[in-house]
Amino acid sequence: MLTTGLSTAERVLTRCQTLARFSEDREGTRRTFLSAPMRDCYREVSEWLAAVGVSARVDAAGNLRGLYPGASPEALRLLIGSHLDTVPNAGAYDGILGVTLAAALLEGLEGRRLPFAIEVVGFSEEEGVRFGRPFIGSRALVGRLDDDLLDCCDAQGVSVRRAIEDFGLQVAEIPRALLGADVLGYLEFHIEQGPVLEDLGLALGAVDTIAGQSRLEFTFAGRANHAGTTPMHLRHDALAGAAEWIVAVENAAEVAVGTSKGLVATVGFLDVKPGAVNCIAGQVRASLDVRHASNEIRKSTVMDLVQRAHEIARRRELHVSSRMLLDQDAVAMDTFLVAQIAEAMRNVGCQPHRMVSGAGHDAMILAEQVPAAMIFVRTPGGVSHDPSETVQAADIAKAIACGTQLLEQLAVSREFLTRVGRA
Amino acid sequence: MLTTGLSTAERVLTRCQTLARFSEDREGTRRTFLSAPMRDCYREVSEWLAAVGVSARVDAAGNLRGLYPGASPEALRLLIGSHLDTVPNAGAYDGILGVTLAAALLEGLEGRRLPFAIEVVGFSEEEGVRFGRPFIGSRALVGRLDDDLLDCCDAQGVSVRRAIEDFGLQVAEIPRALLGADVLGYLEFHIEQGPVLEDLGLALGAVDTIAGQSRLEFTFAGRANHAGTTPMHLRHDALAGAAEWIVAVENAAEVAVGTSKGLVATVGFLDVKPGAVNCIAGQVRASLDVRHASNEIRKSTVMDLVQRAHEIARRRELHVSSRMLLDQDAVAMDTFLVAQIAEAMRNVGCQPHRMVSGAGHDAMILAEQVPAAMIFVRTPGGVSHDPSETVQAADIAKAIACGTQLLEQLAVSREFLTRVGRA
Repeated sequence: MLTTGLSTAERVLTRCQTLARFSEDREGTRRTFLSAPMRDCYREVSEWLAAVGVSARVDAAGNLRGLYPGASPEALRLLIGSHLDTVPNAGAYDGILGVTLAAALLEGLEGRRLPFAIEVVGFSEEEGVRFGRPFIGSRALVGRLDDDLLDCCDAQGVSVRRAIEDFGLQVAEIPRALLGADVLGYLEFHIEQGPVLEDLGLALGAVDTIAGQSRLEFTFAGRANHAGTTPMHLRHDALAGAAEWIVAVENAAEVAVGTSKGLVATVGFLDVKPGAVNCIAGQVRASLDVRHASNEIRKSTVMDLVQRAHEIARRRELHVSSRMLLDQDAVAMDTFLVAQIAEAMRNVGCQPHRMVSGAGHDAMILAEQVPAAMIFVRTPGGVSHDPSETVQAADIAKAIACGTQLLEQLAVSREFLTRVGRA
Repeated sequence: MLTTGLSTAERVLTRCQTLARFSEDREGTRRTFLSAPMRDCYREVSEWLAAVGVSARVDAAGNLRGLYPGASPEALRLLIGSHLDTVPNAGAYDGILGVTLAAALLEGLEGRRLPFAIEVVGFSEEEGVRFGRPFIGSRALVGRLDDDLLDCCDAQGVSVRRAIEDFGLQVAEIPRALLGADVLGYLEFHIEQGPVLEDLGLALGAVDTIAGQSRLEFTFAGRANHAGTTPMHLRHDALAGAAEWIVAVENAAEVAVGTSKGLVATVGFLDVKPGAVNCIAGQVRASLDVRHASNEIRKSTVMDLVQRAHEIARRRELHVSSRMLLDQDAVAMDTFLVAQIAEAMRNVGCQPHRMVSGAGHDAMILAEQVPAAMIFVRTPGGVSHDPSETVQAADIAKAIACGTQLLEQLAVSREFLTRVGRA
């Protein structure tokens, strides 16, 4: 086992904070797809990589990519990375940490060649801020950066296509960004962006599934009326009905046990009309977000909650309708890689905790074509997408130790070195 | 008993519809305090009154007032009226009906003098639309049109004071609008603006109390978090907490029995932050409106609901705060007048249904100084403050019959004719 000290971890933290200064906004970090500060970001990361002999380049989709060669010219490659873009008013670690850790792992090799090459990838776009569509960078690697997406425009009317050309890249070269047949897999370190690891007192987690997600919009329609002149028994209060349903949504997820454990269901958006203190609500629009590792459990939960809304509406003489906004299946991480990660965690003294990611990540896109896996790093307070986002140096040290150990394991694994593409 | 036919009722309806055409807006009725169309309204109503020998004038607060003399010059006076202003996109009957019915009652007397004079009053401002402050007209009659209110400005920065002068009236003469010592009482016909009479199958109701009203704003504060990465047991969801409380608010009013009967409690406004489909709500602001004829029951209900919010917040580790926006006591109508109205209703074949007004009216202001009472007229569907507001001609005929009968009763009531001022 290679050991890495806290000094390496501190350097990783410092590097993340350095990248946070490359921002479109004067105050706070905001760095969207192919924005001007993204160029500074590429330059900075390229310098780290150059120090270990890796010459990085930006592909036609804006992804920074650098190859650390393997022991032989025919060596297959393992991708390690995450995304370089940020949300507005971002923290310093979301995405960035995964790229910075990839560089740190190469440094830890001190020039030693492994039986496989390592390609560091800094994805250009994961958050979906500029064009309202996420994963532009990783989609290019699996051939899903299609014309529809290329024609999407930002708030200034600039299309993805034009943004690429304006940056000095060539749309025609996007096919060259595609994953080759020589890819062994994709590994992504990412902050958890949730409170689970902290709650369990653990530094790291091995993601075995990225949860599926359903998003719906419900409309409860009743009758708007005067709050003073309408007795309770003659009301059709859309908000009271929606409130009863919101409590039912929460309860459905809270009581989930057995295979349903880990279910999350959220009403986060609510719009009440007319929305006045002295008016009974005539209409309420409410969102529903349901996630779980099992598509079956997620879908049956959604069906139950739709039915529950109709039951409540029927009893109250309201009308309710719902429409599906998103119905995204769960994505399994690669069983072999997850097992290797768990073993590496055990080997460096971490509890091999397996977990579900409730949020989407580039690994979900890459998993369509290659074995993919993720390692979550504890996020203090679960706080992310905020300048107060932090990561502990001790946890970074554990992530480096785990990653280094994983590389050592894979370097001697015949099973790994011979399995190209999806398991 | 005097009889009035449907033809009189139809004329009342037509007159209301005529006034609805005097509007500040090209589409729909909107006639606010001393707006240009109010001048047309005064002219039209004055013409009706002139036809029964009443010379109407506009007082310094914009109220149209016309005296139908009594049998002797020393006769004391009964005020009958309602308001002439409207909300935006108004119906044709709210307020207007009461003024039109007052004129119809005078017409029914066919020149006959009663032992008391009748002053018709068309109040200039009840709705509070132009200055955000209601009851400007009736306040002038009880000496509560003070400097504070006179200095209020509308959206264009025009004060009440300047609006009065611009219209050609004199602020200095407002004291002349005050009720004199010769006022026997105030009677107001008004559409119910609620569904109670319709639900009971009754045309008329005798208002014995105008409900007291509490308005509060609650703020539930939790922790905004990612809807995908935060497991249910680690959430502090402000919206789920508020929803539980909204159900409790509704339930508290629904189960009210005995002396608490008639309690209404409403959450009509809700603001959720951040308010996104994939974010657990960190903060919810919610309104509470509680009304009841008994101040004690209303106040104890509010206290219970505040306590309930704190219980829910404590269990969910949320923080809740509340502030009182309005705490207005109930106003009793005059016992004698209400009894006389009930008797008149019985005498014309109507069930003498007594009821609470859940909304405020000019009668509430007049009741501060003189015996006041109201007669509610059934409002189809409870619909008001909307162009689809209607009144049935048959109900108007009953209102006229009841009002005429009431005048006959009062004309021979020694008790009425000798009781000046508040009982």
